[in-house]
Amino acid sequence: MTMGVSRRLFLHHLGAVGGLGAAYGAMTALGLNAAAAATPPTLSPQLGQGRKVVILGAGIAGLVSAYELERAGFEVTVLEGRSRLGGRNWTLRGGDKVEMVGEADQTVAFEKDVYLNAGPARIPSHHEGLLGYCRRLGVPLEVEINVSRSALIWGEGAHGGKPIQMRQGINDTRGHVSELLAKAINKGALDGELTLEDKEKLLPFLRAYGDLSEDMSFQGTERSGFLQAPGAADQFSQRRPPVPLRDLLANPQIRATVFEDNINMQATMFQPAGGMDQIVAGFERAITSPVIRNARVSAIARSGAGVQVAFEQGGVRRTVSADYAIITIPLAILAGIENDFSPAVKTAVASVPNAFSNKIGFESPRFWEKSQIYGGISWVGGDTSLIWYPSNGLHTERGMLLACYGAGPRAEGFAALPLEAQIAEARAAVGRVHPGHEADLTKPVVVNWSKIPFSLGPWPNWGGQAGQEGHMDMPAYRLLNQPDGPFHFTGGHLSQMPGWQEGAVLSAHRTIKTLAAQVQAAALASTRAAAS
Amino acid sequence: MTMGVSRRLFLHHLGAVGGLGAAYGAMTALGLNAAAAATPPTLSPQLGQGRKVVILGAGIAGLVSAYELERAGFEVTVLEGRSRLGGRNWTLRGGDKVEMVGEADQTVAFEKDVYLNAGPARIPSHHEGLLGYCRRLGVPLEVEINVSRSALIWGEGAHGGKPIQMRQGINDTRGHVSELLAKAINKGALDGELTLEDKEKLLPFLRAYGDLSEDMSFQGTERSGFLQAPGAADQFSQRRPPVPLRDLLANPQIRATVFEDNINMQATMFQPAGGMDQIVAGFERAITSPVIRNARVSAIARSGAGVQVAFEQGGVRRTVSADYAIITIPLAILAGIENDFSPAVKTAVASVPNAFSNKIGFESPRFWEKSQIYGGISWVGGDTSLIWYPSNGLHTERGMLLACYGAGPRAEGFAALPLEAQIAEARAAVGRVHPGHEADLTKPVVVNWSKIPFSLGPWPNWGGQAGQEGHMDMPAYRLLNQPDGPFHFTGGHLSQMPGWQEGAVLSAHRTIKTLAAQVQAAALASTRAAAS
Repeated sequence: MTMGVSRRLFLHHLGAVGGLGAAYGAMTALGLNAAAAATPPTLSPQLGQGRKVVILGAGIAGLVSAYELERAGFEVTVLEGRSRLGGRNWTLRGGDKVEMVGEADQTVAFEKDVYLNAGPARIPSHHEGLLGYCRRLGVPLEVEINVSRSALIWGEGAHGGKPIQMRQGINDTRGHVSELLAKAINKGALDGELTLEDKEKLLPFLRAYGDLSEDMSFQGTERSGFLQAPGAADQFSQRRPPVPLRDLLANPQIRATVFEDNINMQATMFQPAGGMDQIVAGFERAITSPVIRNARVSAIARSGAGVQVAFEQGGVRRTVSADYAIITIPLAILAGIENDFSPAVKTAVASVPNAFSNKIGFESPRFWEKSQIYGGISWVGGDTSLIWYPSNGLHTERGMLLACYGAGPRAEGFAALPLEAQIAEARAAVGRVHPGHEADLTKPVVVNWSKIPFSLGPWPNWGGQAGQEGHMDMPAYRLLNQPDGPFHFTGGHLSQMPGWQEGAVLSAHRTIKTLAAQVQAAALASTRAAAS
Repeated sequence: MTMGVSRRLFLHHLGAVGGLGAAYGAMTALGLNAAAAATPPTLSPQLGQGRKVVILGAGIAGLVSAYELERAGFEVTVLEGRSRLGGRNWTLRGGDKVEMVGEADQTVAFEKDVYLNAGPARIPSHHEGLLGYCRRLGVPLEVEINVSRSALIWGEGAHGGKPIQMRQGINDTRGHVSELLAKAINKGALDGELTLEDKEKLLPFLRAYGDLSEDMSFQGTERSGFLQAPGAADQFSQRRPPVPLRDLLANPQIRATVFEDNINMQATMFQPAGGMDQIVAGFERAITSPVIRNARVSAIARSGAGVQVAFEQGGVRRTVSADYAIITIPLAILAGIENDFSPAVKTAVASVPNAFSNKIGFESPRFWEKSQIYGGISWVGGDTSLIWYPSNGLHTERGMLLACYGAGPRAEGFAALPLEAQIAEARAAVGRVHPGHEADLTKPVVVNWSKIPFSLGPWPNWGGQAGQEGHMDMPAYRLLNQPDGPFHFTGGHLSQMPGWQEGAVLSAHRTIKTLAAQVQAAALASTRAAAS
């Protein structure tokens, strides 16, 4: 999952946090090769012989852990609180029920082939951990259309209340920037920075870059769209007049023009054909270990060198014993479960609240395809942030229109509204960008992740930059990324990508390696003891 | 079909040609509504009752004409020289034979699901004429991945002989441009152009646009890719160092970074699932009129107010009579067929030579997907121009790699090479960009359009800008866009988009309207004659 453009677009490194504590030394002492962490662990199938692991949570981190550890010979048990697997990887289809704390249940009424990926909904091509499982598990992928040049940018008070096409935002901006830079160069303003030879190369480049006229002025470009498209005979193309730079800069959504170059948003993007949960289905097919559903964990205790986990299922209290526990439960929920963690770990777990994120989907006739919008995202600002068009079922009658995807502090306030008010706001945003079509929107589904049982949030708020990604390196994060005896905390929240499935995959891989090292160390110690 | 980046990227209007002749007046006198030409004609199903049309050529223009006219009640006969329909819309699969004038036949050896679209291979989302037929004919579309940020740019002598990723070319360029413009603004160099308020808005925009540091310098950006990807725990992301602007400008392929904003190349792009010829198959399913294959037209004559077309089929000479002929035969071939055209038309037809274009495809294991390249295009310059990765069958074992797509004068020389030399050049270009993988390339197929029977070129060379698109408005073009009595010249070559199927669709729509007007005028004349 990802955040709205307004909050995350230009976020990059938050800067290294100085003063690394002792925990950092311990972490690097594990000898983790950072580069190697991107590849799946290769473990001997004998490694886990006679060893038990209990995995708490069957989201992506739990499923990856179960898949890899059972192949390494461990006896694995997975406990999952929900009746379904996948965690935040959750695809809503007709007949599904959405339960949210403090809200009436919603029953999804979508017709066949219309679905909403309530959690993650796209996979960048460099998320090789996750894509590797798609390949291995036979999950068919299709292109997630993250960008359409026909999609729209609507900004409060901009362009007389009308949206502009993404193609015009992108190419008119580039035209104006190129013209201004060429002017400055030709005035000699950058002679300190550029040699004559540089200028001789840069000016023709700028002309091409911005599609400038021969006099290096920007007079508009066909790249921004046609007043009249080229056609037969004398139907000559006519380009649109350019939007003045001042008007572009007055559009509060103008930065959406570089959204597509956010490293996690760059083409090629994927989605599993048929819904994101086809990845979960792939793991379900492959995993042979017991996965106990509707298992509500009530206590996590140490037991000798190992663990004992108590859970309730259908009103019955049961326990599982194991040598190790992999704990993927969100920290904010984990904090409320009776546990035997070290005091510092307890404190760290309790110190990390959850962030907020909301999605609202409608079923609708595909009016957007009549505007040549096939997939991609229109940016609308406000609480609802965007309109995200479906990448599947192109040219069919109906589709799922995502009319809100917000995150951050603003999402907290939005989630506090009654569901009907949230739906009305999303509908109104669609109407501003696609006038008249707000009435086409039917069968709304609201997902406020802060109210979804067993998640209670989309990802943790590690503080500072709530829910955002970047260089996370705070003490609690560092501490929880080390095993606490037999307890291995695992999940996207313990990676640099808390909002992405790839973070969960990589965190699971790291845990598996750490656990393998523990097993090998224990084996070595017992061999020595036997020999002495 | 489209041309290589080096030739067409920044082409826009060639500028109106002055001195319009008398023919232009005649054309506008037809009352053609330019905007309406983009919508399919709506004709009464009775319009053509008792009228015959012969259509010469079953490419897209011929198929659209047949489809629409039979629905308007005309008696339609289609003559096609080849054994297959579709013209340049041609998908090559295992077992297919490629015949080229002056070359030994090639038999395609691709395995199942590997195919080469030898002609058109992509459809922009604003080509509504063609997309409309896909919808009506039930042709399933999938995304044609025209852009991958992981694809590569390789330029002779640039970057020490190594390619750079598209993401680095695009985002480093933007970073440097933003930094330079910010510097110029801060020096006051643009105070004549920008108000203080403009500057206060533009500077923060530039910081975001180029991902500049706080001091407005460009220090590289995560958008350009990672030295180390973010991962679990302490695997912090490290961005790549920026490529210096001077090095970017020294790369002869750097303009490929704005290829994606060519109006015909912008996301969302499509391809029919299973091959471009699925559009042809759709027309074949829908058209009920006789389509005579292997019919080599030998003479096109007037016959009273109508036409008589002679053709040979299997050594037998036959004729078809009709009230009208729609002639989609490429002009360079038409010039060699005995005909009854007006002298000016004869001259015009003979005045338009063909352009050149080449494609070379290989079957290969998908080594590029291991470099996170899924579809998209790498730019290599030279005769072969590009490496275009398949958009279908992602994550399967093997795929079709297009290792050459060239056009223009350079393509003429390349087509003159022996096929083995062409293949060797394409293979070597792949090796420069993907070292070692040239050896993976098997089962080459060469398509030199200048040698393909019944086409002898990819599109006409209307002169001036050979084969390029733009504002075509030369006398021969104008003349041939009018009917010559019963003869209606039709096809992409008579549109502003000779290299695109959309041009063929729109030209056919225009012809159908012109023909309908002739029919109505003739009916009115005979009613008047009867009444007088």
